[in-house]
Amino acid sequence: MTESDLPVADFHPYRWGDPAHHTELPAAAHETLAAFGVRAPARPPVDLAELELPEPAVDAKVLAELAALVGAEHLSTTNAARLAHTRGWSTPDLLRLRAGDATDAPDAVTLPGSHEEVVALLELCERERIAVVPYSGGTSVVGGLTPERAGFNGVIALDLKRLDAVLAVDEVSRTATLQAGLRGVEAERQLRERGLTLGHFPQSYEGASIGGYAAARSAGQASAGYGRFDEMVVGLVLATPRGTLELGSAPKSAAGPDLRQLVLGSEGSLGVITSVTVRVRPLPAERVYEAWRFDSFTAGANALRRLVQDGPVPTVLRLSDEAETSINLADPAAMFGGGPGGCLAVTGYEGSAAEVAARRAGASALLSEAGGQPLGTEPGESWRTGRYRAPYLRDPLLDAGVLIETLETVTFWSNLHPLRAAVTEALTNSLTAQGTPPLVLCHLSHVYETGASLYFTVACAQTEDPVAQWRLAKSAANEAIRAAGAAITHHHGVGTDHREVYAREVGPLAVASLRAVKQVLDPAGILNPGVLIATSDAAGQDLTGQDLAGHGPAEGGN
Amino acid sequence: MTESDLPVADFHPYRWGDPAHHTELPAAAHETLAAFGVRAPARPPVDLAELELPEPAVDAKVLAELAALVGAEHLSTTNAARLAHTRGWSTPDLLRLRAGDATDAPDAVTLPGSHEEVVALLELCERERIAVVPYSGGTSVVGGLTPERAGFNGVIALDLKRLDAVLAVDEVSRTATLQAGLRGVEAERQLRERGLTLGHFPQSYEGASIGGYAAARSAGQASAGYGRFDEMVVGLVLATPRGTLELGSAPKSAAGPDLRQLVLGSEGSLGVITSVTVRVRPLPAERVYEAWRFDSFTAGANALRRLVQDGPVPTVLRLSDEAETSINLADPAAMFGGGPGGCLAVTGYEGSAAEVAARRAGASALLSEAGGQPLGTEPGESWRTGRYRAPYLRDPLLDAGVLIETLETVTFWSNLHPLRAAVTEALTNSLTAQGTPPLVLCHLSHVYETGASLYFTVACAQTEDPVAQWRLAKSAANEAIRAAGAAITHHHGVGTDHREVYAREVGPLAVASLRAVKQVLDPAGILNPGVLIATSDAAGQDLTGQDLAGHGPAEGGN
Repeated sequence: MTESDLPVADFHPYRWGDPAHHTELPAAAHETLAAFGVRAPARPPVDLAELELPEPAVDAKVLAELAALVGAEHLSTTNAARLAHTRGWSTPDLLRLRAGDATDAPDAVTLPGSHEEVVALLELCERERIAVVPYSGGTSVVGGLTPERAGFNGVIALDLKRLDAVLAVDEVSRTATLQAGLRGVEAERQLRERGLTLGHFPQSYEGASIGGYAAARSAGQASAGYGRFDEMVVGLVLATPRGTLELGSAPKSAAGPDLRQLVLGSEGSLGVITSVTVRVRPLPAERVYEAWRFDSFTAGANALRRLVQDGPVPTVLRLSDEAETSINLADPAAMFGGGPGGCLAVTGYEGSAAEVAARRAGASALLSEAGGQPLGTEPGESWRTGRYRAPYLRDPLLDAGVLIETLETVTFWSNLHPLRAAVTEALTNSLTAQGTPPLVLCHLSHVYETGASLYFTVACAQTEDPVAQWRLAKSAANEAIRAAGAAITHHHGVGTDHREVYAREVGPLAVASLRAVKQVLDPAGILNPGVLIATSDAAGQDLTGQDLAGHGPAEGGN
Repeated sequence: MTESDLPVADFHPYRWGDPAHHTELPAAAHETLAAFGVRAPARPPVDLAELELPEPAVDAKVLAELAALVGAEHLSTTNAARLAHTRGWSTPDLLRLRAGDATDAPDAVTLPGSHEEVVALLELCERERIAVVPYSGGTSVVGGLTPERAGFNGVIALDLKRLDAVLAVDEVSRTATLQAGLRGVEAERQLRERGLTLGHFPQSYEGASIGGYAAARSAGQASAGYGRFDEMVVGLVLATPRGTLELGSAPKSAAGPDLRQLVLGSEGSLGVITSVTVRVRPLPAERVYEAWRFDSFTAGANALRRLVQDGPVPTVLRLSDEAETSINLADPAAMFGGGPGGCLAVTGYEGSAAEVAARRAGASALLSEAGGQPLGTEPGESWRTGRYRAPYLRDPLLDAGVLIETLETVTFWSNLHPLRAAVTEALTNSLTAQGTPPLVLCHLSHVYETGASLYFTVACAQTEDPVAQWRLAKSAANEAIRAAGAAITHHHGVGTDHREVYAREVGPLAVASLRAVKQVLDPAGILNPGVLIATSDAAGQDLTGQDLAGHGPAEGGN
């Protein structure tokens, strides 16, 4: 099976992935959890079919105008459509919906069919002061789909699903122009017909879309070989309430700042990316995935660092710490069943047969020299084929009363181990103090010459209020990351969850600069209000752009 | 000789490079030029020592404050200092200074000694409405050092020469923190002592500095192997009149837009980059440079495309067209002496011995298969050791009455040949219509998976007014580049020369966004006024920020 064989999944609002793959915990797991003091929550999740939503806040006349714009069949105010566009996929998002809290549901869901319709829709919403949540895959785990409603005459979800075309493929330049609503799985399927691949396989691959990859600076599991999504983008088209911004006249240039990199990562707050032109690669003729064992995380990380700094660099390169190695998340049956001990690394090679052989030989020699013990291709292939299964475990664990969530960060190599220790300690201390000592797992899954990402999985028993429980733990982790000088996110994005720490990370002049750009492109502040940057500054000044007279960024930026 | 053996040159204001390497044309060249109708200009260049400049326009009290801030010995109003900071190194810049036109001379030259002094100086200049030209190597060829004076109480050059320290080297993360005024040559010398290299060798290497590399998105001749300078930067510190912006908490992240890429390429218009943290590499143990012959530019470009798309990728990769191949610019003695015919490609490999051998073998096999004939290492080494000599030829050619200038652009592979034809035709038609049919040479010197740069050298007889003559030709080339949808510059930057075409390339919403950021960081508009973006918009509205009350970007951005 390759990535492009996966189906495009229609996710249940609070159960991850393709319903055909929904899974249960093995009986042994329940016993283990009980031994850890985990008890199923008092109340099971609500039945969404029985959940009543308030009437849409958007004026009927405006709804009619929206329907006229996109076509009546592409506007929906049903409970089902609104619930399906409520928040994203963080554990708190799921917990809230399970508890029947759908307060962030949009008033309506619109599905424009072209870039021009998106622009027209934004113009209409600016005029009517309707907040707009751009929506492609809907897989945000950082509150990127939870806009602030205050000051607006309603909130609509702008679902890009109908913008799902491969607009152009330039086989000489090896680029493809893809619309934002195209699912990653479908993009791969269509590119494969031409012998091409994007090579972008994030954990959210079954649900995510091209526009989300771009807007949130996604990084796929093969980032070592294929690059991050922001490195693949050579051009983009942004729809804003003030018209169209089209960028990318060349792969790279010295024609001013690289404004593509200002739009990538803007998370729908500056405009709606309607298409991107991305670099594509030939489909690999050969794929080999294998595993290595290291005695310690430090030894493994040193080996990975040497590989990425001196080469040859595998296409996939990751390392689990001792705790994560002992719990194979990809295989529920083996979940509490030990493993090879030490720390498991996975190396994957994709390319032509000769190139894969040469790269694998070179990398294997270096890994051996660095203390790695080869475990062969079986555990590597097992990781490759099982890798999209881990998120399916979250739902039955939540059902069973486990609080489980992930977070991630990135830093320079010399800061890697202090950062890992600080975050682990912060999470452990916070949850232990709440009476629920956690298991904290960590892996390193994205490597750069100068640094690497760290990805944490945290599990513990749920308290009575697991949303508040996680808020405290997450806040402690955020502070540890900030104190260590690392970035608040490697690939999950900022959303609303990271907004305040992000503002501290980049500083007030950076935030004021972003706000000034937003003021140009979205002067009424209708786009994803409160996502990425706050709608009001520290002094409480309203920055949602109520005043359209052209007044600029607030003072006090430094 | 390696790059770090080169001396740090103190350039003469209108003669390129190290005075010890100033050169003359061989007698045979003069004969050939005469046959082409080239006649020496009626007037020789003025003697700068005899050039009188007007009194500094900056108020004496303000000069005293500046002197108090940086130290009296680090402020100069002498003619020599002001002339040494007058404009950059484009041919029109040289022609104007040769003709005694020093109208763009700054009123004073200041040399702050720390980041804090730069911030304080900018605050002072904002208060006093003094325009500031950030100056590091001074090698701009696009009018990047020619600010608009109107509306200001004088112009000062902010020379970063004293900020020349290697602040930190992190050997684990392989990064170095370098101050902006550090010359490229000196950075290499200091890094070499630790067994490291930046690998950044632009044509301006003998004169350019780290800050200029960053501010103008420099690309070195080894960009295929070491990357562009904007790809090396992982962190930066920007001094602005409103304080300090510090970016780069990780190599890459999803923490919002990549704002480093908003500062890189801002050419001193948003702030003064005072230091950057860059990725460094181990000094290569081995270097091999060799040459190949292709029958045509198309055949050669296809071969280079295959190399960069399918690998292995050499460290240096370039291809001259037939005309450039026949004129070896690096060797004045052989300048009009033929060559191997066809199109010359240079491939360079740097790294460990084994890695160089493997990469060279793979690339050579592909080049042979693509129709390349190996010419051995001698012409490759000759290019490597002679590559900094070409710019020295411009001065004697200008003396002899030749108009000689270069320009460059970048596009996607599928557009490469139409772009080359269009630019060549535009230059040829414009100069032929002026009675001076030109020689137009072209090479491809920076390759990406999705595209490549084109670099043109143009030579013809000077008319009576060579500045106006070039302005027409350059304008025709700019229009051809725009019409072809390519970027107006690959590595020279925007400055003032490309500003209008750049605005058309990125469009009004992009320009309005940049202006909005400038309004936040430099509300008085003192930083390099008129560089990168115009000081007034199309409607003539003044945007120099006379109004400090916090009004934002002008309306009418779309």
